[in-house]
Amino acid sequence: MNIVILAAGMGKRMHSDLPKVLHPLAGRPLLAHVIDTARTLSPTRLVVVVGHGAERVQAAVAAPDVAFALQAQQLGTGHAVMQALPLLDPAQPTLVLYGDVPLTRADTLARLVEAAGQDRFGILTVEMDDPTGYGRIVRDAAGSIARIVEQKDASEAERAIREINTGIVVCPTAKLTEWLSTLRNDNAQGEYYLTDTVERAVADGVEVVSAQPGALWETLGVNSKVQLAELERLHQRNQAMRLLEAGVTVLDPARIDIRGELTCGRDVTIDVGCVFEGRVHLEDGVQIGPHCVIRDSRIGSGARVLAFCHLEQAQVGADGRIGPYARLRPGTELGEDVHIGNFVEVKNSQIAAHSKANHLAYVGDATVGSRVNIGAGTITCNYDGVNKHRTVIEDDVFIGSDSQLVAPVTVRRGATLGAGTTLTKEAPADQLTLSRAKQTTIPGWQRPVKQPRQGTK
Amino acid sequence: MNIVILAAGMGKRMHSDLPKVLHPLAGRPLLAHVIDTARTLSPTRLVVVVGHGAERVQAAVAAPDVAFALQAQQLGTGHAVMQALPLLDPAQPTLVLYGDVPLTRADTLARLVEAAGQDRFGILTVEMDDPTGYGRIVRDAAGSIARIVEQKDASEAERAIREINTGIVVCPTAKLTEWLSTLRNDNAQGEYYLTDTVERAVADGVEVVSAQPGALWETLGVNSKVQLAELERLHQRNQAMRLLEAGVTVLDPARIDIRGELTCGRDVTIDVGCVFEGRVHLEDGVQIGPHCVIRDSRIGSGARVLAFCHLEQAQVGADGRIGPYARLRPGTELGEDVHIGNFVEVKNSQIAAHSKANHLAYVGDATVGSRVNIGAGTITCNYDGVNKHRTVIEDDVFIGSDSQLVAPVTVRRGATLGAGTTLTKEAPADQLTLSRAKQTTIPGWQRPVKQPRQGTK
Amino acid sequence: MNIVILAAGMGKRMHSDLPKVLHPLAGRPLLAHVIDTARTLSPTRLVVVVGHGAERVQAAVAAPDVAFALQAQQLGTGHAVMQALPLLDPAQPTLVLYGDVPLTRADTLARLVEAAGQDRFGILTVEMDDPTGYGRIVRDAAGSIARIVEQKDASEAERAIREINTGIVVCPTAKLTEWLSTLRNDNAQGEYYLTDTVERAVADGVEVVSAQPGALWETLGVNSKVQLAELERLHQRNQAMRLLEAGVTVLDPARIDIRGELTCGRDVTIDVGCVFEGRVHLEDGVQIGPHCVIRDSRIGSGARVLAFCHLEQAQVGADGRIGPYARLRPGTELGEDVHIGNFVEVKNSQIAAHSKANHLAYVGDATVGSRVNIGAGTITCNYDGVNKHRTVIEDDVFIGSDSQLVAPVTVRRGATLGAGTTLTKEAPADQLTLSRAKQTTIPGWQRPVKQPRQGTK
Repeated sequence: MNIVILAAGMGKRMHSDLPKVLHPLAGRPLLAHVIDTARTLSPTRLVVVVGHGAERVQAAVAAPDVAFALQAQQLGTGHAVMQALPLLDPAQPTLVLYGDVPLTRADTLARLVEAAGQDRFGILTVEMDDPTGYGRIVRDAAGSIARIVEQKDASEAERAIREINTGIVVCPTAKLTEWLSTLRNDNAQGEYYLTDTVERAVADGVEVVSAQPGALWETLGVNSKVQLAELERLHQRNQAMRLLEAGVTVLDPARIDIRGELTCGRDVTIDVGCVFEGRVHLEDGVQIGPHCVIRDSRIGSGARVLAFCHLEQAQVGADGRIGPYARLRPGTELGEDVHIGNFVEVKNSQIAAHSKANHLAYVGDATVGSRVNIGAGTITCNYDGVNKHRTVIEDDVFIGSDSQLVAPVTVRRGATLGAGTTLTKEAPADQLTLSRAKQTTIPGWQRPVKQPRQGTK
Repeated sequence: MNIVILAAGMGKRMHSDLPKVLHPLAGRPLLAHVIDTARTLSPTRLVVVVGHGAERVQAAVAAPDVAFALQAQQLGTGHAVMQALPLLDPAQPTLVLYGDVPLTRADTLARLVEAAGQDRFGILTVEMDDPTGYGRIVRDAAGSIARIVEQKDASEAERAIREINTGIVVCPTAKLTEWLSTLRNDNAQGEYYLTDTVERAVADGVEVVSAQPGALWETLGVNSKVQLAELERLHQRNQAMRLLEAGVTVLDPARIDIRGELTCGRDVTIDVGCVFEGRVHLEDGVQIGPHCVIRDSRIGSGARVLAFCHLEQAQVGADGRIGPYARLRPGTELGEDVHIGNFVEVKNSQIAAHSKANHLAYVGDATVGSRVNIGAGTITCNYDGVNKHRTVIEDDVFIGSDSQLVAPVTVRRGATLGAGTTLTKEAPADQLTLSRAKQTTIPGWQRPVKQPRQGTK
Repeated sequence: MNIVILAAGMGKRMHSDLPKVLHPLAGRPLLAHVIDTARTLSPTRLVVVVGHGAERVQAAVAAPDVAFALQAQQLGTGHAVMQALPLLDPAQPTLVLYGDVPLTRADTLARLVEAAGQDRFGILTVEMDDPTGYGRIVRDAAGSIARIVEQKDASEAERAIREINTGIVVCPTAKLTEWLSTLRNDNAQGEYYLTDTVERAVADGVEVVSAQPGALWETLGVNSKVQLAELERLHQRNQAMRLLEAGVTVLDPARIDIRGELTCGRDVTIDVGCVFEGRVHLEDGVQIGPHCVIRDSRIGSGARVLAFCHLEQAQVGADGRIGPYARLRPGTELGEDVHIGNFVEVKNSQIAAHSKANHLAYVGDATVGSRVNIGAGTITCNYDGVNKHRTVIEDDVFIGSDSQLVAPVTVRRGATLGAGTTLTKEAPADQLTLSRAKQTTIPGWQRPVKQPRQGTK
């Protein structure tokens, strides 16, 4: 089968510089969703017809299995498909999809394709409560599709028809080529309409069949930000339902956003207001607290991520305890039972089992052993203004509060650093190391007195 | 035109010490919304009738164009309007609004006023699916309004009428004065009802006309916190729709709160859970991450505000990168491409282009140059207990981690501060300045041993 | 009255290792909600029939007033009730509830029990728009309940009946014992159905009566995570409505989660996205900002909790100002007008009136006096790796920024600590105490130069 995806439109009502099909739904371009769905049908040819913003569109979805046809002028859907014809296999049927109709399910399309087979003209139709404005499916007495009548041409009786044309069609490619060549643009918009091929098919004695989607939303397109928001919500709701059906506890299905792929083990709980981006995996028994943002990360079994955490490209070990207000940046790899607490940032660091950084710390470019306690306010000074250096903290170390570890530097096994230490060279094992000025009290010192205000406070 | 706004009610069902009309919708008193709408109609006289909590109400909405009439006792809507009569221009019609009906649109009122002209009695009416409890609009065979019949007095046929009186009326002021003077309070509540003027008008041969709002919610009033919450949501939904229609990408229209005025450039994206207060402007291409709170701020083009940020009276320059977890307090002015990272607070400071404070810092009362790197844990010690002092950091400075800058103090161009420095006097240009005790290791030191618990842990 | 709660089911569709009745709704097991409701009816015997995961279920809800009966094999609802019979008082009627039907209101059950009295068979019935799959209530010409017909056995006319059996019944216990003994399991599932006792009652000439709940959701059960999420939302919505009706301003009733008991004084405002757990009390005039998480805490009158705060077992005094981004951990007790600001963590500490810790600090195991100013970056070093020690800060102290207080240590009344001080022994009253190395500038120092990249950045 050939698949042609129409993606040349401008989307003027989006009020945006971005080509319409590149607007993101669940974090990915509308068109990428359609291409993903198309791929599940294993087409022999996959052609995207580009036009408005062609270069950006091509760059956004370029892949070895995707060919592009350019529709330099937007002269209608029939004209768009014509541009793709040279790239299609004439011996296979062609399925036409739309880059701005992102939620059609693959099994719906598979049913349409199966209904059409090699020789028939297949139309995806759907029943609408209010079909005003859509092309109605007119059937003959036997129930066969006779033609599609547009709103403005429809009789009173035809306007009462609730089954409408979604525009998604599949048909024999050689025939399609013929029919397209006979299309005329003597209509109000001066465009060539793909829909007009239906009457050509009927005239040719080609049987016209239909399939219906499981839900109306599968056929909805995006022409405005209002519609984009509606589809975003539908899609998010669908994803939440899928999680629930798989046994995940989702505290509020209306308040979870999944922009990518979220996979979950058994007995996972996700609290309200969480956002997942990219690929995220939550192992068995993971609990995610309210208002967390997690991207491209993996959370080990039994781990708890408390409220307000922000994870990106991070791995959390089993039984970890993260947050609240913990930020794990790319390259964070936490072992089993590691605790990262409030107002702590970890970046590009490995922290081994049972270690803790519970309060107000920055751990960057560090290799941290097991059972290490990193005191409140500790900072790894990994950056000298031009280069980044590593800090190594071996097993069983105790870092006193508010220490600065000026990398490159190593703290040996079992060492203790005194509070407030600036560590610039290696701290030996099992000893107390510190840098500390003597505590003194200034005799006769007076507190400052209130000065007259001089501007800003 | 005169406009009278009735705002004397107590709102007992609000269970609050605050007068009903002062309860906030979208962050501003209900009454303020009504006054705003009234102003768009350019009334010659604008009179607010106050009663319950009169002083607080007057103080809350006092303005040169607003006059107040006192209704010392709440004896009904007719009685309330009577109190305003001395302040009205008898040569102009009078429009009566309600301080607890906040969402009526100006164009709806304009249509009502236009329909009534100088000589007719105009009523804003609306169709309700369930009109139970409301006064029904009884029309004669010609479709003219004959009278308003209250629920308790309505016949079976009249109860089936779905068009109801919203209470919003406009009529000739001289006539109104006459009619009000004839009102009687021989009803269950012992009140003088403005509605009773309709039958006076009909009796006088004054034509009674109507206009309808675009939506039912324009006529809803607030008598309880349940209704207040409903209107808050309606209003927020309307605002989200307005943004979407203007081309803003709003990830979830049900999870954005705008309490004031949010204006946006082109290609702006706002993620879930954000709250905007006061006047906020987002320039072209701005992206606001999930769960941000932004008040009275301006964000430059291309800037990204990541999750969990809190901005108040701040300016972010073009291409800035803020957060996650950044707090910008009043007086923050950031230049182009400034990065403010996690757990960083900035207050009353100017930070010039390309400077960064990425981790765990407090920058207060500071003037910071370009290309400055403020290390993790840096604190400007701006407060001596009674006075605030400024810190000046010139261009190209590198502040080592965990430094304290004891203001007033200056760091000259190109200077470097060592980690952990307490800076109490000027750091010269292009040099390394630091205050650091020697690193020492204590020989023979023993770690503390576990003591028996003595109470709290 | 006896109450039997059926709680033996496995809940296979929950896809969980947790027994179905232990899945939490609003933070507590489904079964706990049913037991709570049962208790309000003051039963003489309260028996929970356990089976699947019996030990976990018993452990989760064990209480002096709860007896358990074991249903070792799950052979149907009738069989489950049989296991409870030995524990019941035969002289009292028995009410049968379900551990997975959590939202039935006590007054609904009271009405059912009253309708049944001592001698009648009472069924809780409800009307459904789509009753497909449920047992229909068949009434005779006089309106009396004649029998319950299951979906598969129902005639066309019976299938049109919209009144269905909820399964909640009450009946005389001696009769129930008789009826149960005659149940047969010759049905598709091979189970003994409690429902079959209805026809026994009719045959015995026992009058069958009914009561109806106020809302359909009172009768909904949980068989899947989808249903659990639906009931969670219904319950949360109900709780939000209850708050609104009591006069609390809830900015979005669809975005508040109460998992436990939230009580509020007058004129309390709760912004969007807040989560309350355990017992929380908000006194008069409290304002809770957006996206706060508050557990087992008490907030004093007039206090403001700003955005992104996280409180657990904390007390906030009157007129306190907390946050944004403040974390109050267990044992926090704040006096009047205490300010805890951004990125500050307080644990197991008492802080007296008018004191402030506004920025980036950790206050743990501390006793803090009145009018104390704790500078940005201050850390109480309460943990030496094995023991926790207390810090005492007396009245009117000023702690300079970035100080470390190495506990046990005391700062006497009126003392000032210089910025960056590591305090290891008592600071005397009214003096300036500090530990500070001399500020020096290194002559001829050169900034590091860019090195070739060696792997991670």
